[in-house]
Amino acid sequence: MDLIKQYQKIRKYTELLCQPLKPEDYVVQVVEFASPAKWHLAHTTWFFETFVLIPYLEGYRVYNTDFPYLFNSYYNNAGDRVLRANRGNLSRPTVDEVYAYRKHVDKKIQMLLNQGVIDDVWSVVVLGLNHEQQHQELLLTDIKYMFGQNPLFPVYDANTFLLNHEINEELGQVKIPEGVYEIGYKGNGFCYDNELGRHKVFLHEFEIDQQLVTNGEYLEFIEAGGYTDFNLWLDEGWSWLEKYKIEAPLYWHKVDGEWFSYTLKGFEQINPQHILKHVSFYEAMAFAEWKGMRLPTEFEWEVASNQFKWGKRWEWTNSAYLPYPKFKKAEGAIGEYNGKFMVNQMVLRGASIATSPNHSRASYRNFFHANERWQYTGIRLVR
Amino acid sequence: MDLIKQYQKIRKYTELLCQPLKPEDYVVQVVEFASPAKWHLAHTTWFFETFVLIPYLEGYRVYNTDFPYLFNSYYNNAGDRVLRANRGNLSRPTVDEVYAYRKHVDKKIQMLLNQGVIDDVWSVVVLGLNHEQQHQELLLTDIKYMFGQNPLFPVYDANTFLLNHEINEELGQVKIPEGVYEIGYKGNGFCYDNELGRHKVFLHEFEIDQQLVTNGEYLEFIEAGGYTDFNLWLDEGWSWLEKYKIEAPLYWHKVDGEWFSYTLKGFEQINPQHILKHVSFYEAMAFAEWKGMRLPTEFEWEVASNQFKWGKRWEWTNSAYLPYPKFKKAEGAIGEYNGKFMVNQMVLRGASIATSPNHSRASYRNFFHANERWQYTGIRLVR
Amino acid sequence: MDLIKQYQKIRKYTELLCQPLKPEDYVVQVVEFASPAKWHLAHTTWFFETFVLIPYLEGYRVYNTDFPYLFNSYYNNAGDRVLRANRGNLSRPTVDEVYAYRKHVDKKIQMLLNQGVIDDVWSVVVLGLNHEQQHQELLLTDIKYMFGQNPLFPVYDANTFLLNHEINEELGQVKIPEGVYEIGYKGNGFCYDNELGRHKVFLHEFEIDQQLVTNGEYLEFIEAGGYTDFNLWLDEGWSWLEKYKIEAPLYWHKVDGEWFSYTLKGFEQINPQHILKHVSFYEAMAFAEWKGMRLPTEFEWEVASNQFKWGKRWEWTNSAYLPYPKFKKAEGAIGEYNGKFMVNQMVLRGASIATSPNHSRASYRNFFHANERWQYTGIRLVR
Amino acid sequence: MDLIKQYQKIRKYTELLCQPLKPEDYVVQVVEFASPAKWHLAHTTWFFETFVLIPYLEGYRVYNTDFPYLFNSYYNNAGDRVLRANRGNLSRPTVDEVYAYRKHVDKKIQMLLNQGVIDDVWSVVVLGLNHEQQHQELLLTDIKYMFGQNPLFPVYDANTFLLNHEINEELGQVKIPEGVYEIGYKGNGFCYDNELGRHKVFLHEFEIDQQLVTNGEYLEFIEAGGYTDFNLWLDEGWSWLEKYKIEAPLYWHKVDGEWFSYTLKGFEQINPQHILKHVSFYEAMAFAEWKGMRLPTEFEWEVASNQFKWGKRWEWTNSAYLPYPKFKKAEGAIGEYNGKFMVNQMVLRGASIATSPNHSRASYRNFFHANERWQYTGIRLVR
Repeated sequence: MDLIKQYQKIRKYTELLCQPLKPEDYVVQVVEFASPAKWHLAHTTWFFETFVLIPYLEGYRVYNTDFPYLFNSYYNNAGDRVLRANRGNLSRPTVDEVYAYRKHVDKKIQMLLNQGVIDDVWSVVVLGLNHEQQHQELLLTDIKYMFGQNPLFPVYDANTFLLNHEINEELGQVKIPEGVYEIGYKGNGFCYDNELGRHKVFLHEFEIDQQLVTNGEYLEFIEAGGYTDFNLWLDEGWSWLEKYKIEAPLYWHKVDGEWFSYTLKGFEQINPQHILKHVSFYEAMAFAEWKGMRLPTEFEWEVASNQFKWGKRWEWTNSAYLPYPKFKKAEGAIGEYNGKFMVNQMVLRGASIATSPNHSRASYRNFFHANERWQYTGIRLVR
Repeated sequence: MDLIKQYQKIRKYTELLCQPLKPEDYVVQVVEFASPAKWHLAHTTWFFETFVLIPYLEGYRVYNTDFPYLFNSYYNNAGDRVLRANRGNLSRPTVDEVYAYRKHVDKKIQMLLNQGVIDDVWSVVVLGLNHEQQHQELLLTDIKYMFGQNPLFPVYDANTFLLNHEINEELGQVKIPEGVYEIGYKGNGFCYDNELGRHKVFLHEFEIDQQLVTNGEYLEFIEAGGYTDFNLWLDEGWSWLEKYKIEAPLYWHKVDGEWFSYTLKGFEQINPQHILKHVSFYEAMAFAEWKGMRLPTEFEWEVASNQFKWGKRWEWTNSAYLPYPKFKKAEGAIGEYNGKFMVNQMVLRGASIATSPNHSRASYRNFFHANERWQYTGIRLVR
Repeated sequence: MDLIKQYQKIRKYTELLCQPLKPEDYVVQVVEFASPAKWHLAHTTWFFETFVLIPYLEGYRVYNTDFPYLFNSYYNNAGDRVLRANRGNLSRPTVDEVYAYRKHVDKKIQMLLNQGVIDDVWSVVVLGLNHEQQHQELLLTDIKYMFGQNPLFPVYDANTFLLNHEINEELGQVKIPEGVYEIGYKGNGFCYDNELGRHKVFLHEFEIDQQLVTNGEYLEFIEAGGYTDFNLWLDEGWSWLEKYKIEAPLYWHKVDGEWFSYTLKGFEQINPQHILKHVSFYEAMAFAEWKGMRLPTEFEWEVASNQFKWGKRWEWTNSAYLPYPKFKKAEGAIGEYNGKFMVNQMVLRGASIATSPNHSRASYRNFFHANERWQYTGIRLVR
Repeated sequence: MDLIKQYQKIRKYTELLCQPLKPEDYVVQVVEFASPAKWHLAHTTWFFETFVLIPYLEGYRVYNTDFPYLFNSYYNNAGDRVLRANRGNLSRPTVDEVYAYRKHVDKKIQMLLNQGVIDDVWSVVVLGLNHEQQHQELLLTDIKYMFGQNPLFPVYDANTFLLNHEINEELGQVKIPEGVYEIGYKGNGFCYDNELGRHKVFLHEFEIDQQLVTNGEYLEFIEAGGYTDFNLWLDEGWSWLEKYKIEAPLYWHKVDGEWFSYTLKGFEQINPQHILKHVSFYEAMAFAEWKGMRLPTEFEWEVASNQFKWGKRWEWTNSAYLPYPKFKKAEGAIGEYNGKFMVNQMVLRGASIATSPNHSRASYRNFFHANERWQYTGIRLVR
């Protein structure tokens, strides 16, 4: 597919995800880590304006000189910005004004692409599209978080496509023999800088589950007192659990002795057959400890990944997010994309049911803080 | 005017104040003390539903059983509620749904009032209307606060009626001789419980200004280093100033050496002739100290108030908000209206340009914390 | 008694209070509001050095140029200082070094006083001695607080003189007729600036208890659910109670169903006959509400005070700490002594068993925040 | 050396380190992470009492039943304890009482060891001695932190042995060829569980410096604006720097344009020849980025460590603290020693001038949070 069509398709998909929203739903920010839908719509647009239109479209003038301040996320090289925690303080620009901004930038990008694309433009547009896809996933998880905190538990979409991917399709273990393996992206397509440079690691023999942990297995952990036995937990995890009085995965509620959870199609009873989601790294580690097993490293995961099905949950690994040997960051703002976050976060591998189509690969490295669980995070075990 | 007409008029006025708003503007809560417009609309409605319809309209069923949890403000007797700081987390119910709730309750109240009003109903409806008027003022000041924090400085209404009351109409001093005076509400109309019981105080002779302090006078204070001389400030005030880096009244911004401020009609240059607004008690005290004068007590203010014009600014007094002798609080939830706040707040007297029509009297006692300044607060001096 | 003898006596008394302490006990600061004994010893000395020796003793050189930074409390005019919360971070100067500092300053002060005292010196020395007496009381209450938080509950002094003043000596009520009364210090002795100017107030008739509330009465309040009924509490008081899980006065502990408390002679069972101590203003207000009575204002207290015995507890009044009419603060640092604290604190009247000999009078105004209760605070009721 | 002699020698060394202290110096806790000397003395003693005497010495009775609550550090299996941040709140037990506790436990341990040592006892005593050595290092760094925050900058010991290890003894690079290497402790002596199991890693070729970064090199970084260029810093590091206004390594002060630092022998001018110390991981990473080099991984460090001199600084690696393959934690309280901290900390390798004699080896893994720098932390670079 050519780049213009790809651009149109991905940009349109973002707006499609917003179709079930009322204007009020675009505005709210419940916590610092989850941004308003309006902000996602505008920020991804700002990305194209800032890194494509301004440097490459001759004569382009910034659409609104206040917007860079409002919609820059974390690029110090791109100037000052609204504090992350304050993104929900902005009722203006309105939703309509943000859609107008999108339309304007889309038109200009297509004008630029029609001029015949030079290499630099091509690579930044592709980065921008991948960036937009990452925000599509965040859009869904942030909306879920906002609705999940509302005592009315609003339905996002009663027929959401996310519903079809809740069951493990295979069971069993895969054994990987010890040896030296290659890690990192290989190929000619797009990848993020953090998937490079491709390099060798030595792995000892291990056996990894083909299936992910289910709600039913996790319920056993809860009922066995998993949340009250400090010996199962990392010290930080135990403090987190005590401070926030954590007793179950995110969105789980016990009503009259039965477990329910909030989902994008509303409040519903926990199905033990379904694959567990919305656990923190701390919970994943405690569960593995309780099972007498462990989480894979990101290298084990990558090596074994062609022998099991993945893509329904982001899977916690026990690897810290660190640079690969020979990792290189780009110059300027684009160099801030990944590298500066390489401390105190854990790597997730795979992809989730909220991941956009064609936005996953075995070498993809996602990363979150150990306490975060508003993504569709799950657990795969190793022995 | 009969009660039904009064009810209709006051309820309609609330909605009138919201006319310039976009749906997005109804949702945002920037700080704990300023609530979203949507919340004000719903909370005042909940007040009538809870304290009038449920006890007095036979067969009335709560409109939505989730709403009491969402829209109770601080009445412990009326059950649990959303934390004040989380009012802005709720995108639902939507603005339309809140207006539908208002319509429903209005209809039922009018049905009840048409049945012939008993005394108890009458007094709670009147309290509810005065309550709604208080929220009308908050609605305006909370909207102003939200817009004033938005880097786009949106215009609420370019022709707002608030513009006509910015100039002192009289100058001079009034001298009040020493003696015993009566304080508190006297008459047959409505008053809050905190204006009772009427009682005597002894006042020493004092002279009070007929005019309020202007921007021009306050600019002199700023330019004389008022914000850098700790000897002028209360200890708490000085800590507040240092912690929040306060250098001017709320909404003031220095741009290229000139002072501007955000107003409901947009960003505009400070007019030295205009009456000062949006200062904290700390600032009022420091300014008075700098002038070698002082603030009145609330008793001095009340006694002198028939000898000067007031109603443009809420005026800080150096009286703490405490019960009058023989103060009695009502039973149950209504008793929580005023009495439980009688500690660590200062009394303001008068009314402001944001006060609703027919919602002011000389005995009215407003009260805020010493650091708060998002109301139209001003300064009147005594020597 | 002449001033030198008075000086010696009061300075020695401070050191007497420290006799039961080990070197380690002089150092610790458990909370911001309670300072280490070492700091009290040094700060009171710094007061004499700074406000007497430096201005009035010719050729005096500061004992240690680091000490002003270490031992200034809150006098902005006297320069920068260690943050209040950090007073317990200083192991040096050692206790011995602080005693040496005291000895040095004492010698110099006596040298100065022997030169023949001029008026200015006299008044500052007298202020310094009253200041030292205030710190003597704080010394005791701060030591009690430190020991009271230590799981070992150390004994300060098993035979402490404080033990003899725990019982009410009279019972009954005093009725005061309505009228105009004079308030404030009158006489030729020492008083603080906040006791002036003497002025008139009008009081309505009231009846005040001659006795203070006892532990036994307060136990009834606890057992009747006083700490669980929000209708009895100020809103701030209820938040305070919920946040800190307050269920009884400070130092009270329930062990196997019986109430005990920490005292300066150790851990002992509550005696219902003893006068209640260590309650906050919030608790005093809630108790009065429960009794259907109220606290006196500071004016009522002062007018009635010659008709009951007082001096065992600091008694909470329902008066905010505010300036009297015609209050004047001194120039410079001494002017910071009282006036700058006149907001958001409540007045206590009387004196406590920890108050130094000859340091109380009917016009004395003490003041603390509504939540503070580490002083010997009690309750006297009015109907 | 036999175990009794080793026990006596190590226990005595702890007390030797305390010889320069005054009683007041044993008590203070300036920040949560640095404990009072008194606490270290007692905690290491509690370790022997709890894990050796109680389980293995027949008839042993706990010395003081309050001490476990006071001196347990973080062992959930050993019961409740004083909050870490509150260790400085305890003036009692006194220093003398703590030394008496040590004497008592020492006597009993020697009594037990004289009975003929069984394997279990032997291994816990050896662990206790290594534990005590770790606290010896903390004792020194915690004292330094306390004195370093005191405006008097007290001298710990003007002739401290730490002074002789400030200069690099060799210069140059070591090149390590790519290959599979073995990592982890190998041998029959003592090691911590986190150094096991021994396992293989693949390393790509790298060159590592033989010398550590000096003050002089770091001064160049400061002067080149290293602390103001966000592109050099991890995102978290930049936030840390902005929040705490970090402009230089810990203990550095700029006085009249010259850099000085607090050391255990007092306040002295920075010597550019000396090896840099007291930098955080964030600073180490920013410095490496500025140099166009990088930090080693802990595996690279271990493999290369026999080709350079180390032991003067704890050296930051860019490895997160995670379990080795086949890591096993012990049952019960001892299992809490290391494993539960394996998240969000970075590995340091080597040893420092504050490390006790015979308490270092190439496989030793120390670990701290990325912002911590009160240990003698330094930088070794890789290209």
